[in-house]
Amino acid sequence: MKEIFQPLVWREGVLRLIDQRKLPQEEAWLESQTWQTTASAIRDMVVRGAPAIGIAAAWGVVQAACTVSEITPQTLKPALDGLAASRPTAVNLFWALERMSETIAAVAGLPADQALARLEDEARAIHEEDLAANLRMGELGAEWARTMGKGAVLTHCNTGSLATGGYGTALGVIRSAWQAGLVETVYVDETRPWLQGARLTAWELMRDGIPAQLIADVAAASVMRDKGVKWVVVGADRITARGDVANKIGTYGLAVLARYHGVKFAVAAPLSTIDPHLEKGEDIPIEERTPDEVCQLGGVRTAPAGMAAYNPVFDVTPAELVDAIITERGVVEQPDAMKMKALLAASA
Amino acid sequence: MKEIFQPLVWREGVLRLIDQRKLPQEEAWLESQTWQTTASAIRDMVVRGAPAIGIAAAWGVVQAACTVSEITPQTLKPALDGLAASRPTAVNLFWALERMSETIAAVAGLPADQALARLEDEARAIHEEDLAANLRMGELGAEWARTMGKGAVLTHCNTGSLATGGYGTALGVIRSAWQAGLVETVYVDETRPWLQGARLTAWELMRDGIPAQLIADVAAASVMRDKGVKWVVVGADRITARGDVANKIGTYGLAVLARYHGVKFAVAAPLSTIDPHLEKGEDIPIEERTPDEVCQLGGVRTAPAGMAAYNPVFDVTPAELVDAIITERGVVEQPDAMKMKALLAASA
Repeated sequence: MKEIFQPLVWREGVLRLIDQRKLPQEEAWLESQTWQTTASAIRDMVVRGAPAIGIAAAWGVVQAACTVSEITPQTLKPALDGLAASRPTAVNLFWALERMSETIAAVAGLPADQALARLEDEARAIHEEDLAANLRMGELGAEWARTMGKGAVLTHCNTGSLATGGYGTALGVIRSAWQAGLVETVYVDETRPWLQGARLTAWELMRDGIPAQLIADVAAASVMRDKGVKWVVVGADRITARGDVANKIGTYGLAVLARYHGVKFAVAAPLSTIDPHLEKGEDIPIEERTPDEVCQLGGVRTAPAGMAAYNPVFDVTPAELVDAIITERGVVEQPDAMKMKALLAASA
Repeated sequence: MKEIFQPLVWREGVLRLIDQRKLPQEEAWLESQTWQTTASAIRDMVVRGAPAIGIAAAWGVVQAACTVSEITPQTLKPALDGLAASRPTAVNLFWALERMSETIAAVAGLPADQALARLEDEARAIHEEDLAANLRMGELGAEWARTMGKGAVLTHCNTGSLATGGYGTALGVIRSAWQAGLVETVYVDETRPWLQGARLTAWELMRDGIPAQLIADVAAASVMRDKGVKWVVVGADRITARGDVANKIGTYGLAVLARYHGVKFAVAAPLSTIDPHLEKGEDIPIEERTPDEVCQLGGVRTAPAGMAAYNPVFDVTPAELVDAIITERGVVEQPDAMKMKALLAASA
């Protein structure tokens, strides 16, 4: 496998982000110098993927801290609020901002250069811990997959290096399972409307030389029935206290189809994706984006002008359809509120 | 409702076909003067939809008959074979060619102008009977839908005027149910990779002023759960003797999702779609098309160059997931071999 790709690179106040809207045609990098540009990059999906959004936001806070006369919760409130408003569903964003807020509170009063250094250390820790968590999820996920033997795997959206601090969540599990000889081929949903599967997951799997086949999203049901799929693995944008999972639109349908076909359905996500304050999936705010994303593709209009569209970006899969939640701290099979609580309470 | 749109128009040996690959951006018409051009138009999807393909093929036979010195089964064999090879899955194609073959056998020996006139009458009858069957399916389908009360409806692909001799099969049922006040809104799957829903069904529904919302295919599961969908209706390319249904890829997944959500799942298709010689859905030949259709969109490449793709055009839904097969001769609920046999045996 090639070295782990880094979609976010920090150097001296500048956050370089690979522009994921342009992949795979073009490897263009956006250089963000301000928290406002970083917030826009999150909103406009230059950077996407729940863990990557959290990391970008943490670096955005450091950028804001460079510009204030004094580092305090008050002076940085506009930046924290502005970054929090960039995307509504992924909880990793709020989790990362909360960690940065706590650090801000802790360093208020220190000399500016020391305070700034502490904030920079915290953002770097968030980034590096995410990569480490992904590598650990890969190990644990491959172990979980081993019980099913070698077979085909199906995934949705992009949950790889591009969506995280590197390696990936669900795609990290696939990487590790493939290295362990457990994956015959990966069926990749193209993942309309943004085509994260066709553009990004395909790009990552080709880069690593892992055998993969792209499918139209609608082919998933017959692929599960006819092509020896042993398990499906997806990421998550938010997981509730009882194990309901908000993730890319289409995830819920895959979970229903997997259950119907006796295919195991796993969710791989770091602990930072779990929102212990939310009990039920119905309480997760679901982002809706412009109908244009459904009515056109790559700037080319597909539907007739004036056609209405409904474009939810995420859906919620109830815990009872999830066979395993794979985290860096362990795998929770058939999740429920008690098991999730035990996971969160366990020592790291 | 506006007058019924006609995607195939025959005049003095010329078959005019609206080029469905260019809709909705452009209403371009192909004028086919030869059976070879008509066969290419079927293969290249200028004309698509199982009933429309059958009608086009029938007119293609008439075009071939214009060119032979004597109208006999032998002289027309190349045309019959060539037209039969244009698409493999839809049985209406073979059914229409069979009807034309029988007519050829019956008129062999008649003076050429009389024989030709009889063939032209037969092709016109195939076309007009299809339209009449669709209008009748609409009535019967709306009657079936009435038992569920007013609600949202979901459909896949294009099964309207464009796919048939006019009015449509599944979309015809939706038209009639809407006129009967039973449809709040129509959720239209965009239907990758060809986007027949986004391009063609959206175009037809807007033309008729029927309220509709386009969705990414992956949103169907949460729409069924959250948006008051009472029934799903789709067309068919082939229905077996026991009621298994081959239709556009994605149909099978919708049937599984509908069953899970307690949403009724109906298939609307003329009797010519039923293939009494095939027992099981597994025996239906399923066309695979080029991976390019999944790896690009409208000529724009979406996946990385060299990415592999699996691109089945159809899938098979077993009869046990189908709540109703709506034909011009009646509605078969919970289809099985006995009920299908009784339908075929019933007098028209």
